[in-house]
Amino acid sequence: MLHQLPSLQRLVRHLQKVPYLASKNVYKVAAHFLGQDQAQVQLFCKTLLDACAAIKQCSMCFNWTEGAELCLICSSPARDKTRICVVENWSDITALENAGGFKGVYHVLGGALCPLEGIGPEKLRIQELLSRLSGEVCEVILATNQTPEGDATASLIASKITQHVAAISRLASGIPTGSTLEFMDRITIAKALSGRRPF
Amino acid sequence: MLHQLPSLQRLVRHLQKVPYLASKNVYKVAAHFLGQDQAQVQLFCKTLLDACAAIKQCSMCFNWTEGAELCLICSSPARDKTRICVVENWSDITALENAGGFKGVYHVLGGALCPLEGIGPEKLRIQELLSRLSGEVCEVILATNQTPEGDATASLIASKITQHVAAISRLASGIPTGSTLEFMDRITIAKALSGRRPF
Repeated sequence: MLHQLPSLQRLVRHLQKVPYLASKNVYKVAAHFLGQDQAQVQLFCKTLLDACAAIKQCSMCFNWTEGAELCLICSSPARDKTRICVVENWSDITALENAGGFKGVYHVLGGALCPLEGIGPEKLRIQELLSRLSGEVCEVILATNQTPEGDATASLIASKITQHVAAISRLASGIPTGSTLEFMDRITIAKALSGRRPF
Repeated sequence: MLHQLPSLQRLVRHLQKVPYLASKNVYKVAAHFLGQDQAQVQLFCKTLLDACAAIKQCSMCFNWTEGAELCLICSSPARDKTRICVVENWSDITALENAGGFKGVYHVLGGALCPLEGIGPEKLRIQELLSRLSGEVCEVILATNQTPEGDATASLIASKITQHVAAISRLASGIPTGSTLEFMDRITIAKALSGRRPF
């Protein structure tokens, strides 16, 4: 039926490229936009284009930045430039910043190793990380996700940077706060046991 | 952290209004657009605006139509205008058309009764359906979803149109093809039993 509505077909094809929109929902998102008046859709498009024009990647850590070469974290004198926290994506920085407690700087890899999706080491910003490891960096915290892909990425980076930095650490893996042992999976419990700390 | 990037904040606020985008994914969708080059984003916006300008609701059944007052189903001489299939949304028409077998016309209600979300009978296109029930319509098929909301909507419409049309039917409820009884829920099995047909 869609081939009889060429404009709608083109819109659906574009929406299908947007990640995290399940294919079943693409039609509902299309209907959402079609049901809005023209001015609202124009405002949405203007906001999108403005954001894409204004926001660039930080030349140091590849976090998003608006109106400056360096992002607000890299350019802040209050941040400790000797500690670099390596994360997969920009949204991980937001999560860590919301949690507070880390006063160093970040490095966004742009993903994690995933051979099935064709993401090898050359697609991640590992060279850029190595070039940042001058003598003054004393610790690299590997904060990639606790997934097989994140673990593999952390191992690879650790092997590459081990000669260039004094301390390499990984975020602790264990039982999340507020959870009960009863409903935890086996691997999490095993990791929490092996990573137990003196009380 | 977001308040330091005003363009990004505005984009995220707009994306949050899009249905079926879970709030956790809004940031990833924003990153998807920020990672594209300007020309691609402009093409997306152009496609969206073109679609919103070109596509209107059919004045008869409220299906989407492009470049004409009536949609392709309402204006087709091959369709049987004496049978109206009442659906909740446009995507239901797509599903029914893909299945084939129905040669009548449709009526899009624009949703289903849902008091918790403030959707009462006045928000659905029930009056518009009543005005279509001239003498020549012989059957109304209630194809609202098999949910409490869809069932309630079907009951309400049936009570309103019963004097105006000879036959009112509802889509069969039962075990879907390819399923096993073992994994079916109790209500579906009960409905399949009560709706059993002579073999």
